[in-house]
Amino acid sequence: MAEVSLPVVPKQHKAIIYDNPGTTSTKVIDIDTPTPGPGEVLINLTHSGVCHSDYGVMTNSWQILPAPTPQGQIGGHEGVGRVVQLGPGAEVTGIKIGDRVGIKWIASACGRCAPCLVRQDGVCMNQKVSGYYHPGTFQQYVLGPAAYVTPIPDGIESADAAPLLCAGVTVYSALLKSEAKPGQWVVIAGAGGGLGHLACQLGARALGMRIIGIDHGSKEKLVKDSGAEHFVDLTKFSKDEEMAAHIKSLTDDGLGAHAVVVCTASNRAYAQSVTFLRFSGTVVCVGMPEGDMVAIATAKPSLIVTKQYRIVGSAVGNQHEAIEVLKFGARGIVKAHSEVRKMDDLTQTFKDMHEGKLHGRVVLDLSS
Amino acid sequence: MAEVSLPVVPKQHKAIIYDNPGTTSTKVIDIDTPTPGPGEVLINLTHSGVCHSDYGVMTNSWQILPAPTPQGQIGGHEGVGRVVQLGPGAEVTGIKIGDRVGIKWIASACGRCAPCLVRQDGVCMNQKVSGYYHPGTFQQYVLGPAAYVTPIPDGIESADAAPLLCAGVTVYSALLKSEAKPGQWVVIAGAGGGLGHLACQLGARALGMRIIGIDHGSKEKLVKDSGAEHFVDLTKFSKDEEMAAHIKSLTDDGLGAHAVVVCTASNRAYAQSVTFLRFSGTVVCVGMPEGDMVAIATAKPSLIVTKQYRIVGSAVGNQHEAIEVLKFGARGIVKAHSEVRKMDDLTQTFKDMHEGKLHGRVVLDLSS
Amino acid sequence: MAEVSLPVVPKQHKAIIYDNPGTTSTKVIDIDTPTPGPGEVLINLTHSGVCHSDYGVMTNSWQILPAPTPQGQIGGHEGVGRVVQLGPGAEVTGIKIGDRVGIKWIASACGRCAPCLVRQDGVCMNQKVSGYYHPGTFQQYVLGPAAYVTPIPDGIESADAAPLLCAGVTVYSALLKSEAKPGQWVVIAGAGGGLGHLACQLGARALGMRIIGIDHGSKEKLVKDSGAEHFVDLTKFSKDEEMAAHIKSLTDDGLGAHAVVVCTASNRAYAQSVTFLRFSGTVVCVGMPEGDMVAIATAKPSLIVTKQYRIVGSAVGNQHEAIEVLKFGARGIVKAHSEVRKMDDLTQTFKDMHEGKLHGRVVLDLSS
Amino acid sequence: MAEVSLPVVPKQHKAIIYDNPGTTSTKVIDIDTPTPGPGEVLINLTHSGVCHSDYGVMTNSWQILPAPTPQGQIGGHEGVGRVVQLGPGAEVTGIKIGDRVGIKWIASACGRCAPCLVRQDGVCMNQKVSGYYHPGTFQQYVLGPAAYVTPIPDGIESADAAPLLCAGVTVYSALLKSEAKPGQWVVIAGAGGGLGHLACQLGARALGMRIIGIDHGSKEKLVKDSGAEHFVDLTKFSKDEEMAAHIKSLTDDGLGAHAVVVCTASNRAYAQSVTFLRFSGTVVCVGMPEGDMVAIATAKPSLIVTKQYRIVGSAVGNQHEAIEVLKFGARGIVKAHSEVRKMDDLTQTFKDMHEGKLHGRVVLDLSS
Repeated sequence: MAEVSLPVVPKQHKAIIYDNPGTTSTKVIDIDTPTPGPGEVLINLTHSGVCHSDYGVMTNSWQILPAPTPQGQIGGHEGVGRVVQLGPGAEVTGIKIGDRVGIKWIASACGRCAPCLVRQDGVCMNQKVSGYYHPGTFQQYVLGPAAYVTPIPDGIESADAAPLLCAGVTVYSALLKSEAKPGQWVVIAGAGGGLGHLACQLGARALGMRIIGIDHGSKEKLVKDSGAEHFVDLTKFSKDEEMAAHIKSLTDDGLGAHAVVVCTASNRAYAQSVTFLRFSGTVVCVGMPEGDMVAIATAKPSLIVTKQYRIVGSAVGNQHEAIEVLKFGARGIVKAHSEVRKMDDLTQTFKDMHEGKLHGRVVLDLSS
Repeated sequence: MAEVSLPVVPKQHKAIIYDNPGTTSTKVIDIDTPTPGPGEVLINLTHSGVCHSDYGVMTNSWQILPAPTPQGQIGGHEGVGRVVQLGPGAEVTGIKIGDRVGIKWIASACGRCAPCLVRQDGVCMNQKVSGYYHPGTFQQYVLGPAAYVTPIPDGIESADAAPLLCAGVTVYSALLKSEAKPGQWVVIAGAGGGLGHLACQLGARALGMRIIGIDHGSKEKLVKDSGAEHFVDLTKFSKDEEMAAHIKSLTDDGLGAHAVVVCTASNRAYAQSVTFLRFSGTVVCVGMPEGDMVAIATAKPSLIVTKQYRIVGSAVGNQHEAIEVLKFGARGIVKAHSEVRKMDDLTQTFKDMHEGKLHGRVVLDLSS
Repeated sequence: MAEVSLPVVPKQHKAIIYDNPGTTSTKVIDIDTPTPGPGEVLINLTHSGVCHSDYGVMTNSWQILPAPTPQGQIGGHEGVGRVVQLGPGAEVTGIKIGDRVGIKWIASACGRCAPCLVRQDGVCMNQKVSGYYHPGTFQQYVLGPAAYVTPIPDGIESADAAPLLCAGVTVYSALLKSEAKPGQWVVIAGAGGGLGHLACQLGARALGMRIIGIDHGSKEKLVKDSGAEHFVDLTKFSKDEEMAAHIKSLTDDGLGAHAVVVCTASNRAYAQSVTFLRFSGTVVCVGMPEGDMVAIATAKPSLIVTKQYRIVGSAVGNQHEAIEVLKFGARGIVKAHSEVRKMDDLTQTFKDMHEGKLHGRVVLDLSS
Repeated sequence: MAEVSLPVVPKQHKAIIYDNPGTTSTKVIDIDTPTPGPGEVLINLTHSGVCHSDYGVMTNSWQILPAPTPQGQIGGHEGVGRVVQLGPGAEVTGIKIGDRVGIKWIASACGRCAPCLVRQDGVCMNQKVSGYYHPGTFQQYVLGPAAYVTPIPDGIESADAAPLLCAGVTVYSALLKSEAKPGQWVVIAGAGGGLGHLACQLGARALGMRIIGIDHGSKEKLVKDSGAEHFVDLTKFSKDEEMAAHIKSLTDDGLGAHAVVVCTASNRAYAQSVTFLRFSGTVVCVGMPEGDMVAIATAKPSLIVTKQYRIVGSAVGNQHEAIEVLKFGARGIVKAHSEVRKMDDLTQTFKDMHEGKLHGRVVLDLSS
């Protein structure tokens, strides 16, 4: 192995904190750079994607979270960088200084609890969540467990790898949970969003599904470019039944979709989703509505029984799925539509996100 | 094969009609016995189970049904008897005079439509439903398709086979759809009912699941005798959260149930069901609430996502599952708790059913 | 529905018989055109693919067959044409005069036996095999069961549909049985043959697999054009271990293939196949060696145990898989490399096949 | 938590070594007790099962092993005891002094390699094997990874838990890989052996399968007591075809077994196994024949293809399966037929094993 000239680890580094959780206010500060403990590594992050979940955490708009976000929280959970220090014992995992690795929403899964035994990292009972009561990736240096950080393959830029670590793996896992097979019809609700356009790409190009994307008309080009066979402009339908009828007419046999993956955080999208299905179809829930938690209005037992529908939740993918998605990324099969911004731009980014102005993903350049 | 002395087919036979659909009124009349057409057989029925679905059809209390039940409808869909006549071409299926066969809710599935190609008889697009716009099994003679009537194995009484044809196969299919594995915890809501007690038996004795049965206290003995490891008296809990906490405490690791099969037609039972689950747990919907169709109150996307719950509908089982359940019946592993009544008693039976007075299943003796 | 002008059904039609089974001799004769019985349709065939299985049947070179092929057998099992007559009762299936349909190797599956209940048509216990003790598709008119002939979708030429009915569906089913997932490595042995090149196309383009094709060097272009990521010229390796090492080096992590689908009828290919696998890898057996039946030389229990290999047989696909493959065909995702020949050319075609001279599939034009 | 009075860790402890690998000679010696390193725990073992794999390792009779067993090897891989010391950092796993834990064949799996990502511990690429180039459990103290030792539930004696850690989990995993469902027929070859009788119990009592056990006549009682519905005395059949015909006649529909699990190390048993199957049946390979590695004589491609057989290898189960088997043990559903012997008796035990004299399992008492 060639000598690698690594950056000297500084005593302090830049981090972005939520200085007033409940609002979109963020602030760039200098904080002490930590030293890795047993089994940990220190990572010099160069990029972090900005996810809608960060918005939910920062603004305390998700009722599902057990406690309000603490002041001074460093958010972020799509971080990519290189290992610059190993804590005691970390080397037994085979990890080395200079390895490029990623940090995901589940910053750490224990590997031994009931969910971990069946590789359901997202419901690990001892999980640490990056950017929520655990320091996130909106900073230049972060600690991670040597045994759980995600290796980034060659052949993909770090700015492209970042959005795959959460958005990519989340929709990949959701598409798998849909149990839709190659050649079957899958509707992506919110197809032009950060999650949705990756769902279109992975569904159409990696998994062979036939994609129908739903979003506002302004997203049509992005959705079509992402592999969707049909685009449905939701603003053109005042009645849900009409949209359902239209979507069914787009499927080759007129029976409706085998699956709907709801990548948006809208209660109406959830209510509609069930009406797009054919017999035994599946709704996969991904987006998390803000505010009061509302039941899926069409999740009526008699309907679910007679049509044999399935409604399935998908939190985040596991480590194995993350590695698979990154391989699809390295092969050029999936690539987030993204825009690189500076650390100072995070507040504006959250505002744009809230106003639905983002096309695809924002990735922060953390290098300066 | 020995000579079999078969009953002469009469010109007329007794049938029970819904003379005033919307009420529980029934009437025994004499009707002409039909002649089997191409591919059909005529069956001399000796027994028919009485199912809660018959009640729903008769009283027009299921909003999910596309049209009100016609006056004069002959209900019933758990019929057992012997083949007494073959229509033209029926013999190519190998069926013979004297064969004991059964008629299920799906009296006929086409075998060629999209659902049938994947053996989902319950959503067959050309299905005929026994007892709803197609003559049912509350009569002494009925026609059935030679290729689709269900063979009844030796070693089981006809009165015992009848309830397995609908109640048995329905809960068996539901238990399979739960994807709970041997040794895992499954809650049966409505465990003392016609469906529920068979779910306890099939879950515990055929499929190796650990069963927790919920019902009114009067059903405790039936539920325990049916193989449930624990019984929960729902009348003892005024708050849903307390019942959920209790049920979780009954599972060996305190995490809750791997699956809940809702065999009752109560919206509250559906709302509770989700709260009994452990991570990635599954609610299987079987019971169909009457009156206004109400969404499952706890089917909230954020909860479904973060816990990775699954909510799955199960209409009825397919022909393969029916044959399997009957084998379990012939081996003595499942046996409906049942009471044999006369044809004249059907109206009273529906009243008892509505008032929750039945323990297990009523089977009509059609022989006289 | 518009008036359709259909060809008048002649009293006699042209058929190709095996006049001397055990040799490749065939003969075009005139035979009486049959009348459809109950549940049957008469089909005016325009095309039939020629499959290596026809060769095995005709020459009695498969020891697995229970009896030698009778003299005068009409072979063929990839037939496409239009329905020209309906037998009594056939209309209940919804089939109509003028429908374009296909006949497969399994000309008829009963739908009721144990395998049929789980949709394993290929092992139906009452199956009729097209072209072996049942009249095949090397003729202008053939009978088929209305309930089991395969509907051909619009958007695909009959000459292109024919090879999909056997070769296409066979390898599609085999690829599914491999349980390899999108993004995983699948080796196709015999990748340039009639089966193999369709396996490359369906694996790479419909199912998202990464394909490594093995064949003689002359097939390289066809294999690469069919979607294989790598081509391996088997003539360049004198030692099996070297070929195994080379194939493992082609997989991105050097561990070997997730699955190998053996589309060739060579005992050596079977012995090699196991050596290409990574841990828990699967060999799918499709090709049927001629002459003495020889065990797979590398199927050694200790090796199978420690590596957790799977060796799986795949006879033919079922009706559902056939319909799916034809949809992929209609979408232009799979298209057999084929050459249309006359009925008179069948003997020569078999000779070319035996000498390995065919690139892709031969389809007979039966129209004159 | 109550104060626990733990045994003082001695400087030296008793261990049994293979003093002359290639023979069955063993020797009890005193060795230094090690100190746990980072992430490790020291376990005071009280019991270790004796497995046929130990015999294979000790006598170098398995050709599949990459190298001869070194002199002085401590064998054994079914060890149970209590944690007496924690190495640095071990406490983060939640493990505590006094916990009862087990060591399996896979003493350590890395959790991060390709097989581990899909929980296939048995083919972990960084595995350490207990008793082969890594100190085994035929001793009083052994080190284990805090994150991978197997927790032993309450309600089961240590002497009963030991055989479940390898024999139990091995056959449980094999039964799952058979994909046989409750109510289906599974043949256990070698049903009276250490593996086989547990396969009978787990198949019949935990998984609801119908078991046919094959062994020498002397094992009949053990096999029947273990839950087998039928016993087949292999010494009564001189011809394999006759045994196959007999076994098929025992299955209720005469079609043969859905699966055969080969728990014996006999090439003849492997050759026979395929002949017992019904269509689409599965042979699961577990036993590892000694001496020259021989292909399964009946694993002929044409047969595998036309019958759609599956031949599947099962190395050992994973951690999740181990925990499940121990739960079945704690519930009294599975219990090894075993005999407790002293450490000095190991050589005699191996001799008895080789001569087929053992009924069930031998467990060493390591406490003195």
